[in-house]
Amino acid sequence: MSRRIVVIGGSAAGPKAASKIRRLDQDAEITIIQKGSYLSMASCGYPYFVGGVFDDRNKLISTPTGATRDAGFFTSVKDIKALVDTEVTRIDREKKMVHAENLKSGEERELPYDKLVITTGAHPFVPDLPGKDLEGITTLQSMEDADYLKKIAVEKNIKNAVVVGGGLIGIETCEALQLAGIQMTVIEMLDQVLPFLDWEMAKIIQNHLEEKGVQVKTKARVTEFIGEKGKLTGVKTASGEIIEADLAVVSIGVRPNGKLASDAGLETGKSGGIDVNRFMQTNDPDIYAAGDCTEVMNLLTMKKQHWPMGDAANLQGRVVAQNVVFGNSKEYQGFVGTGICKIFECEAGSTGLSEQMARREGYSNILTSIHAAPDKPGFMGAKPVIIKMIGDKTTGKFLGMQAVGTGDVSKRVALGAMALHGRMHICDLVNLDLPYAPPFSPAIENFIAAAHVLENKWRKFMNGISAVEVKKKLDSGEKPFILDVRGQDEYDQMHLGVGETLIPLGKLRKSLDKLPKDKNTEIITYCKISLRGYEAACFLQSLGYSNVKVMEGGLIAWPFGLEK
Amino acid sequence: MSRRIVVIGGSAAGPKAASKIRRLDQDAEITIIQKGSYLSMASCGYPYFVGGVFDDRNKLISTPTGATRDAGFFTSVKDIKALVDTEVTRIDREKKMVHAENLKSGEERELPYDKLVITTGAHPFVPDLPGKDLEGITTLQSMEDADYLKKIAVEKNIKNAVVVGGGLIGIETCEALQLAGIQMTVIEMLDQVLPFLDWEMAKIIQNHLEEKGVQVKTKARVTEFIGEKGKLTGVKTASGEIIEADLAVVSIGVRPNGKLASDAGLETGKSGGIDVNRFMQTNDPDIYAAGDCTEVMNLLTMKKQHWPMGDAANLQGRVVAQNVVFGNSKEYQGFVGTGICKIFECEAGSTGLSEQMARREGYSNILTSIHAAPDKPGFMGAKPVIIKMIGDKTTGKFLGMQAVGTGDVSKRVALGAMALHGRMHICDLVNLDLPYAPPFSPAIENFIAAAHVLENKWRKFMNGISAVEVKKKLDSGEKPFILDVRGQDEYDQMHLGVGETLIPLGKLRKSLDKLPKDKNTEIITYCKISLRGYEAACFLQSLGYSNVKVMEGGLIAWPFGLEK
Repeated sequence: MSRRIVVIGGSAAGPKAASKIRRLDQDAEITIIQKGSYLSMASCGYPYFVGGVFDDRNKLISTPTGATRDAGFFTSVKDIKALVDTEVTRIDREKKMVHAENLKSGEERELPYDKLVITTGAHPFVPDLPGKDLEGITTLQSMEDADYLKKIAVEKNIKNAVVVGGGLIGIETCEALQLAGIQMTVIEMLDQVLPFLDWEMAKIIQNHLEEKGVQVKTKARVTEFIGEKGKLTGVKTASGEIIEADLAVVSIGVRPNGKLASDAGLETGKSGGIDVNRFMQTNDPDIYAAGDCTEVMNLLTMKKQHWPMGDAANLQGRVVAQNVVFGNSKEYQGFVGTGICKIFECEAGSTGLSEQMARREGYSNILTSIHAAPDKPGFMGAKPVIIKMIGDKTTGKFLGMQAVGTGDVSKRVALGAMALHGRMHICDLVNLDLPYAPPFSPAIENFIAAAHVLENKWRKFMNGISAVEVKKKLDSGEKPFILDVRGQDEYDQMHLGVGETLIPLGKLRKSLDKLPKDKNTEIITYCKISLRGYEAACFLQSLGYSNVKVMEGGLIAWPFGLEK
Repeated sequence: MSRRIVVIGGSAAGPKAASKIRRLDQDAEITIIQKGSYLSMASCGYPYFVGGVFDDRNKLISTPTGATRDAGFFTSVKDIKALVDTEVTRIDREKKMVHAENLKSGEERELPYDKLVITTGAHPFVPDLPGKDLEGITTLQSMEDADYLKKIAVEKNIKNAVVVGGGLIGIETCEALQLAGIQMTVIEMLDQVLPFLDWEMAKIIQNHLEEKGVQVKTKARVTEFIGEKGKLTGVKTASGEIIEADLAVVSIGVRPNGKLASDAGLETGKSGGIDVNRFMQTNDPDIYAAGDCTEVMNLLTMKKQHWPMGDAANLQGRVVAQNVVFGNSKEYQGFVGTGICKIFECEAGSTGLSEQMARREGYSNILTSIHAAPDKPGFMGAKPVIIKMIGDKTTGKFLGMQAVGTGDVSKRVALGAMALHGRMHICDLVNLDLPYAPPFSPAIENFIAAAHVLENKWRKFMNGISAVEVKKKLDSGEKPFILDVRGQDEYDQMHLGVGETLIPLGKLRKSLDKLPKDKNTEIITYCKISLRGYEAACFLQSLGYSNVKVMEGGLIAWPFGLEK
């Protein structure tokens, strides 16, 4: 008899699992039950649809060759039955039966299974605040949400909007609506946007958002949605401020849809996500789960975590399929924690642990480096990439990295992710043989150069200090000797304006009289990217200066605004 | 007393070593001796200068902020003495003395050293053929060569030119001159261009070159340069053909400049490159060597090899500096064999072993996969990337990969290189957590998807066949049932034209009468990229067809030309 497979959920992991099961087992009876009306939506594409990168909504639900992935498609092409607008109300594990209800007709049905796959996804969390039911408050999670926001973007009737939550989806949505001509404000509870980045990296993105006309309010918590005649007119924050807005997109995170599973007695984790083993199998051997409804292993912390990412969902769906068909034979070991997004002309990405995360995880002997450089030779039309790397001084283990900039960030973050998957040591990263040619990277690839800085600090060749620490010193009234070693013309274009002294590197050896007399004076050197700053520091140390630091990343990584 | 360091060679590895030594030791007396007139040239940029990507030649010899890296720069900024136009005639290891001669004045001098660094680079090989001294024959190795070709490109007096040798530099130079309006012909002895690629991948690049108007002659060997009044007018090949040309750029590889070292009794390897240990130290403990004049370890074959690459030279120079200053403390373990180049709108890169190389190295149980797909979702303006992966079936070891296409090849090759450095297994590559968002990659990143195909073949989920093997079958008169499962409209635009049958995947389940009666018939399925082809194959196998193969990479990876 052919195997009966029921898949609950039809967004990413579900259709992937079902399709792969079909490829591995042509005899199986496969049924996908989807609560919504659409199947296999490219939901990560919603912000780009809203922002006008493309206008044909069918592209969100069709194959690359234009076939709409509806129930008919699944039947004719894949011999998979897909029930849309159908909610599973109960899983009867004893009878191995799923109870479902058609949300349109009210019709109830029972579906027996041999193996069950739960891919119920996640839902956006909307806080229970006064006014939360006003018209004009939405999330960006469904095709319906995307249609709603697309209509707004096209009609251009709305002047002001807020995005509540400055995470990945929030920032992508913010960009989309700002491009549609709406004055956007991002409201974020934390003191930074994009919490997968450390503060100083996020600040560079925040600066870019502000340059593009977006208002960013950090450390701001929404306490109330304010409206008139049932329509949103503004949001109120904890400070009492009221921000005018006809539209609010709430994007403060998603929560796993784990209730159906937990009601059936399946184990869930702290987040409410379904607990699975490395075969993506629940505590019921006949039930697997994948995607945003699960908790999976963070390979850096070795803790189970909710990791609602479209790429992970697809990979997990594939693993589930192999295990459903062949028995537990394929592992999904976990994720290293990689994310990326585009913000107007900038890109920002991260993999592994940030410095903040590493501290939270109990690492106390953390090594960091910040490296800023063009992403290829200047004559090839280079754009800057700023990389922060994090390592563990005690073991030399590479823990993670972040990159921001208008240059090619995605390649560098991908390299970091691979290094984490390969469990590489900091020393493994300094002599990599990566694809080099002028159209693609500098002779010393940015990723390698960032590892060089990390190694230089580790071996104490270089005494680094971050822009944040420098700023803290200055704000607290300390008076280090701040030494800019760029050229006069560079200085005239842009400089810190914190009382620094300019001595171009080429003149430094003949300008000893301009340096502090006291060899114990704290000296902080830098240039545009702090390569010349590093050379200057080496020279000053040779003169006997005992407290010389290089400001890592130079002006490019200075997130506090520059003077002209 | 301060340490005396002499560096012989001032292109890439030499200046890098000298600059890093200065940063680590401010007291050292450092002298660079450079045979030519220029220092620290961005020689990988020559083709882009010739091709008009930029016209200011100073960019090739200046820092990102515009300071020319001449002897004055090295003195004032780095306190490094640089002697240009000076050739080292002899190394006296006993007296620890270098004998040099100024090539302009004839003046001779002796320089004592405590540590010597040899970075004499490589020279282009020019075969000793009749006519080789005619005007119009050049290489592209020096600033002078670049100036000569730039002049030709700008003056537009030359109609036809040949590039002898279809390797990396040859192809880059060919693009540059073709863009300058010169009719280019590439003459290559092998049966393919870009020998770091396997044949079928190189053929795709050859097709692209031909689309751009370049003539490509493979399996062609130049036997004579023909001229009139001392000027080149054509080249003759072994077949007797004469190709008109007023210009010939010879780029059939470079040879290490190891003679100075071997004359001094330093050990050299098979290629003539200086033999160094993992500290980049020669058999004389006071002499280090780096860059194109050395042989270093290929981490895949564990054989020493000449590896003349600008990025490796820089990394090796840095390693030498640390060991010169601190004693042997820093290793350069070797390279994995990564290369990349841009060819008009295409990119082509490779890392590790190609299939050919793996066979030459004695691997007999090789697993390969070819995967073709857009480099991001279609709605984001995707471009195709074709990936070939190579693994060892016996051990599951990942051996290498190649990528070609108009999409983002460099990121995928970088991932492959990292996987090799991380000594990863094929199974480690199928569930990677890489940076995914629609502007950067598909939900299943191309690199991962290529690994999926490799795994599918390994686990026998899929029976793959390459386009090359299909073509061989057809050419030898075999009559497999060739099944295109794309849509009619796709077929009408472009198809193989080898007698294939079209049955769109969605109609396949209802078109059983169109299939061969004999279940043992060899059936070869494909679509545009062969994902639908794979689904079709699975279905056909379930019908009892016992000899079904998927043509890997589909139409996109078919290198033999398509019919409209």
